[in-house]
Amino acid sequence: MYTYNYLFNFTTEVFVKMGCTPEDAKKTAKVFLAAELRGLSSHGMIRIKDYYQLYEAKRINIKPNIRIVHETPSTAVVDGDGAIGMIAATRSMEIAIEKAKNAGSGWVSTRGSNHYGIAGYYAMMALEHDMIGMSMTNANPLVAPTFSVSPLLGTNPIAVAIPAGKHPAFVADFSTTPIARGKLAVAEKKGEKTLLGYVQDKDGNPTDDPTILKRGGSMVTLGGDYEHGSHKGFCMSAVVDIFSAVLSGANFGPFVPPSVAYLPVLDKKVGEGTGHFFGAMRIDAFQTKQEFKAKMDEWIDTFKAAKPAPGREKVIIPGEPEREKEIKIMKEGINIIPAIVADLKDIAVKLKIDFKEN
Amino acid sequence: MYTYNYLFNFTTEVFVKMGCTPEDAKKTAKVFLAAELRGLSSHGMIRIKDYYQLYEAKRINIKPNIRIVHETPSTAVVDGDGAIGMIAATRSMEIAIEKAKNAGSGWVSTRGSNHYGIAGYYAMMALEHDMIGMSMTNANPLVAPTFSVSPLLGTNPIAVAIPAGKHPAFVADFSTTPIARGKLAVAEKKGEKTLLGYVQDKDGNPTDDPTILKRGGSMVTLGGDYEHGSHKGFCMSAVVDIFSAVLSGANFGPFVPPSVAYLPVLDKKVGEGTGHFFGAMRIDAFQTKQEFKAKMDEWIDTFKAAKPAPGREKVIIPGEPEREKEIKIMKEGINIIPAIVADLKDIAVKLKIDFKEN
Repeated sequence: MYTYNYLFNFTTEVFVKMGCTPEDAKKTAKVFLAAELRGLSSHGMIRIKDYYQLYEAKRINIKPNIRIVHETPSTAVVDGDGAIGMIAATRSMEIAIEKAKNAGSGWVSTRGSNHYGIAGYYAMMALEHDMIGMSMTNANPLVAPTFSVSPLLGTNPIAVAIPAGKHPAFVADFSTTPIARGKLAVAEKKGEKTLLGYVQDKDGNPTDDPTILKRGGSMVTLGGDYEHGSHKGFCMSAVVDIFSAVLSGANFGPFVPPSVAYLPVLDKKVGEGTGHFFGAMRIDAFQTKQEFKAKMDEWIDTFKAAKPAPGREKVIIPGEPEREKEIKIMKEGINIIPAIVADLKDIAVKLKIDFKEN
Repeated sequence: MYTYNYLFNFTTEVFVKMGCTPEDAKKTAKVFLAAELRGLSSHGMIRIKDYYQLYEAKRINIKPNIRIVHETPSTAVVDGDGAIGMIAATRSMEIAIEKAKNAGSGWVSTRGSNHYGIAGYYAMMALEHDMIGMSMTNANPLVAPTFSVSPLLGTNPIAVAIPAGKHPAFVADFSTTPIARGKLAVAEKKGEKTLLGYVQDKDGNPTDDPTILKRGGSMVTLGGDYEHGSHKGFCMSAVVDIFSAVLSGANFGPFVPPSVAYLPVLDKKVGEGTGHFFGAMRIDAFQTKQEFKAKMDEWIDTFKAAKPAPGREKVIIPGEPEREKEIKIMKEGINIIPAIVADLKDIAVKLKIDFKEN
């Protein structure tokens, strides 16, 4: 078990040694660690290696000039200049929040970025300002639109964070596919089959083979098949892609650059880097904070009081399980599996810093 | 077959006879007719009877004072004062568009409204201003959150309209359930079973019985079951409810008032009427119109070029089938089934106007 502080300081040092400013390194470390605390370790320490390898391959810009290239009172396009995704995204969300302070809401579309970790982190940045936060990103193409076998979309997540009063905030953070990609990797490692309804083979047939993406298969959109509304999942995923990349001038759909160095740079570019989209709305741009928070508590109480289906405990308010994990993991420590400890030790040796084995 | 103009004039006259101003009546007729043209007749002429009965029961306000009750440069709360949903919604979307002209984007949460017809209509209002439009609404509770058997949510649709250049606009308009409620009614009328994955019985068991809502059953959220991501559909539906009703001060979740007069007024109120949420973003608040539209065309071309699954023709760009229907139906006329013709004749007699039988 590692403490939060130990891993935060280590991660910060890794990025400082790569050449990041201490401020940028801390911003990046915060997002990796937030994923660990929220029980989303697929987006946590395991991804530091990906960024280290992109750095070695000179495929990220360690000293980016992140800047607003176009703006109105409530909108902006941010150019991330090839930055680490966490840095471009944190800056972009800060701009959305600033805009919301002045104009009631702020909306930022970001290009020239890279993989930004968990979508929910940026949405949640709005909460301490008594704002609703939104965050979405496009991602490496793995997902086929309805009626197709071409993987043109990423798992394109959407996060929405909404402040409450006595209750913790409502935090939805979900990919627009039935499951996150990480669950396929877990099934593959265990040598298990998956349920039907997650992936299709190269001919569009349903399959329970979690390794099918390596042989021309693709993930399906939320809904699963057309008869069960996969075209609605496609709509959502498409909106994420368009807001993140067409509005900003990033690469869209199949042209999103790989977020790992072992995949080659794509031949065709239609924009700059990966794209994200952020939103912030002041709750007092609609109602008084007191009224809104009291109503939101009432909303949460109403849904908590729903009759559970037999064998189920209760309705889960979005964000509740992650928050419970956050409290528990902060107290008990962060468990890193041996394979990732080994990767982090390798990186530590190369950067001439310490990483203790627990 | 009826012409667009005949039904538009008839519908306008119906609402004028109820006491609406000619302007309000026309606004309302436009939305009903847009549904017919787009092949969404479940939201078209069939619904005039519902509004007529609400009028007879004095459950809608024919002379509403629709007003902004709170605003910032990019946001507003609109009180619909119990208006016909189409009137409150059209006015709210106009305000969102006005805000976007000045501030880059505009976001309006509306309370005190009623059933507003097709969500896509309001999103599409933004297109002629070279803006992205968004529209969502809460609705009568029929849908259970994941892990529950309590119908706390409506089919809560989301619409997003995005301008393109040479191609028609991208128009997504979808309920956050696997199917729209209307499909259950069709199966029931035909005496057919449905597929599994749309509804559950009062104990949360999957069922193919389209009449189950009458016996304590409920619809499920997009995704179908937890293993296939129904909690993501729940997140979306919840966000629609919160943006539409908690932000505005409308009734949320199970407290949304019935949109038909044969259901009693609910005992408990937590706000005013039904709630909607609208957004408008100027595309030139992000990029030049030319750049954006060219990119959007490229996005559409990319998705049209996807390899179809065997037995499928092509990827469908959201809004494409509805637009094709619009052109065809405008030319060939609108077909109204005899049962609805009879209803419309009844209303015509009561209001002392003409309705011809075709």
